[in-house]
Amino acid sequence: MRLPAGFVASGVRSGVRKSRPDLALIVCEKGATAAALFTRNRFPAAPVVLSRAALRESGGRVQAAVINAGCANAITGRAGAAAARRVQRRAAELLHCPPERVFLASTGVIGVVLPDARIRMALPAAVARLSAGGLDAASHAILTTDVGPKVAAASFQAGGRRRRVVGFAKGAGMIHPDMATMLAFVLTDAAAAPGYLKAALRRAADETFHAISVDGDTSTNDTVLLLASGAADAADAAALEEGGPGSAEFEGALTRVCSELAWRIVRDGEGATRVMEVTIEGAASRRDAKLAAHAVATSPLVKTALHGGDPNWGRILAAVGRSGARVAPARARLAVNGLCLVEGGAPAAYRERDAARLFARERVPITVHLGAGTASARVLSSDLGHDYVSLNADYRS
Amino acid sequence: MRLPAGFVASGVRSGVRKSRPDLALIVCEKGATAAALFTRNRFPAAPVVLSRAALRESGGRVQAAVINAGCANAITGRAGAAAARRVQRRAAELLHCPPERVFLASTGVIGVVLPDARIRMALPAAVARLSAGGLDAASHAILTTDVGPKVAAASFQAGGRRRRVVGFAKGAGMIHPDMATMLAFVLTDAAAAPGYLKAALRRAADETFHAISVDGDTSTNDTVLLLASGAADAADAAALEEGGPGSAEFEGALTRVCSELAWRIVRDGEGATRVMEVTIEGAASRRDAKLAAHAVATSPLVKTALHGGDPNWGRILAAVGRSGARVAPARARLAVNGLCLVEGGAPAAYRERDAARLFARERVPITVHLGAGTASARVLSSDLGHDYVSLNADYRS
Repeated sequence: MRLPAGFVASGVRSGVRKSRPDLALIVCEKGATAAALFTRNRFPAAPVVLSRAALRESGGRVQAAVINAGCANAITGRAGAAAARRVQRRAAELLHCPPERVFLASTGVIGVVLPDARIRMALPAAVARLSAGGLDAASHAILTTDVGPKVAAASFQAGGRRRRVVGFAKGAGMIHPDMATMLAFVLTDAAAAPGYLKAALRRAADETFHAISVDGDTSTNDTVLLLASGAADAADAAALEEGGPGSAEFEGALTRVCSELAWRIVRDGEGATRVMEVTIEGAASRRDAKLAAHAVATSPLVKTALHGGDPNWGRILAAVGRSGARVAPARARLAVNGLCLVEGGAPAAYRERDAARLFARERVPITVHLGAGTASARVLSSDLGHDYVSLNADYRS
Repeated sequence: MRLPAGFVASGVRSGVRKSRPDLALIVCEKGATAAALFTRNRFPAAPVVLSRAALRESGGRVQAAVINAGCANAITGRAGAAAARRVQRRAAELLHCPPERVFLASTGVIGVVLPDARIRMALPAAVARLSAGGLDAASHAILTTDVGPKVAAASFQAGGRRRRVVGFAKGAGMIHPDMATMLAFVLTDAAAAPGYLKAALRRAADETFHAISVDGDTSTNDTVLLLASGAADAADAAALEEGGPGSAEFEGALTRVCSELAWRIVRDGEGATRVMEVTIEGAASRRDAKLAAHAVATSPLVKTALHGGDPNWGRILAAVGRSGARVAPARARLAVNGLCLVEGGAPAAYRERDAARLFARERVPITVHLGAGTASARVLSSDLGHDYVSLNADYRS
């Protein structure tokens, strides 16, 4: 797949990871409007701190994004911050731009200072290989324990022109709202004002990246970067803005891309074999609905039952019951893919075989009605099986 | 081990579980002063609802406790409530006491109405076998996936007499503060006023049963019952009361018993091979300290690393960082059994081999200093390995 107009990318091997590509570069030569969302973890990694400051300094303009896998450069103190700055400066030199226009993101082991010399040595090769067809190489170079690359695309019409939105991401472990060891890069050839871009990204992320969970942990490095090159527009065309022409179409395409990436992150979660879509309805408030949805989505008892294909609704309601959300037990309902298992707070008449068949599918939609109001929320989550344990009892991340 | 004076107990087979004892009975013929703590789950099981009402009605007096394993009688609507009432009435008939002096507790599968006819049929045999040496049989009859029975005892002196506190419990799955599929029964031959007994139990539970986690889920059935027979005292002796003579000694013994039972519940947690003791220090508030401790104690990434004996402190700090607790990253410290791994928010100088050795022990004490204040909290939690997945992907609980 080709990148949206105005972008080139590459992926190379720097040696941070043994024998596989681990360094991705995205460049918008004329500079892109940028918006980013970062982890809310209180131990933000060095690249998160650096990139947040750079965006502020540049007024939301990005010319290059340098992404490495294999080392998170998190909880590394001053040495880690200095290593990140050296990578930023070297990329700026090679691309002839101010350092604050270079955005960094890292994923991998926590507590190890970025071996920045290797990355600086590899940067000239990454620059030399930049191309409009570099999406494939870049999307591979950011992976860790991911099953495979995650790429999604959508297009929209505005002002009679077709524009594109293309995203790629990595996921696997520490996936949870606010956010996860999740890196996502979404590029569009539309022109957009930075303030509007941030608002649009927040809205799209709230329903997608913020509504997924693999293991309840939020990493130190999570980053979603949205870049708008404006290359599909005439030089004097109006940029997308809040409520302006084309903005609804743009946000539709953006949400589709984020939604597809979010689904793939959960589906390819560490050791995942199936995905549950937990929908809470009838909650007294949106906060209650989210509390209940997250309690179910992160319950190890629910996740292991899902792994075993066991329609164990008792564990689901027990998780709802301890979530803190208000519940009217005598009005509670639970359904799996439309099959009602609990009605009025007591078991409904259903055949165990039918329920078990629905629980054994790749996608398991679970709806719980709390009987306490009208608010709702939805969260995607993966199952918890032996492969998750094997990956995480041995892999150092 | 003999029961404290004034109590008799038994354990028999009722047929709710296949081919193993599943019905325990505790009786204090003259009636005991009682205090209980119940699950805060919003779907409290029928026996929880019934026992809470009975205690209120009787003014905190209990003559018998009927405990069954194999069926939780939770989320069973009116049919479940009626089944529990029938068991209560039958026990009251057999023991010649008012129904509100019969306390019920159940553990097992959620969503199945208690097969109360089996229990009513077995009650005469349970009554016939009551004895002061019945602790062993009773402590076996309440188990589900527990590795074995959990019994603890302590004694204290007050007014020149020795008094005893004996407890037994079941744990295994859904173990978490507020509380867990945890049933615990603590008996003393001291005399105590009901109001005081409740206050003493709350204080003891806060540091013990409320500070443990196996899988982050709180069950619908959790119950801790404390009974005081007063049989060790002369008829005219003063009852223990808040701040009165002997109360400090009593609470010391009570906390030792609860602490021992809590440790065993975690050590025998489903699939557990080791226990981490997470201590948070330097928190801005007690609430922050608890938030951070629970985030670490329930993180699947931390629990799988613990299972693998991997001193992966990055996952521990990542969990602290997403807990919501205030942290001063540049002042954060982390130590395992006294070995400092992180100092001033960056890796300390330590040998990986030394850290790995400490992580491979049965008891792994982890201390994290948040650098944000002076409050602290402590939580016990088990590791997460293949046996946990095997037990929970197959077992219907």
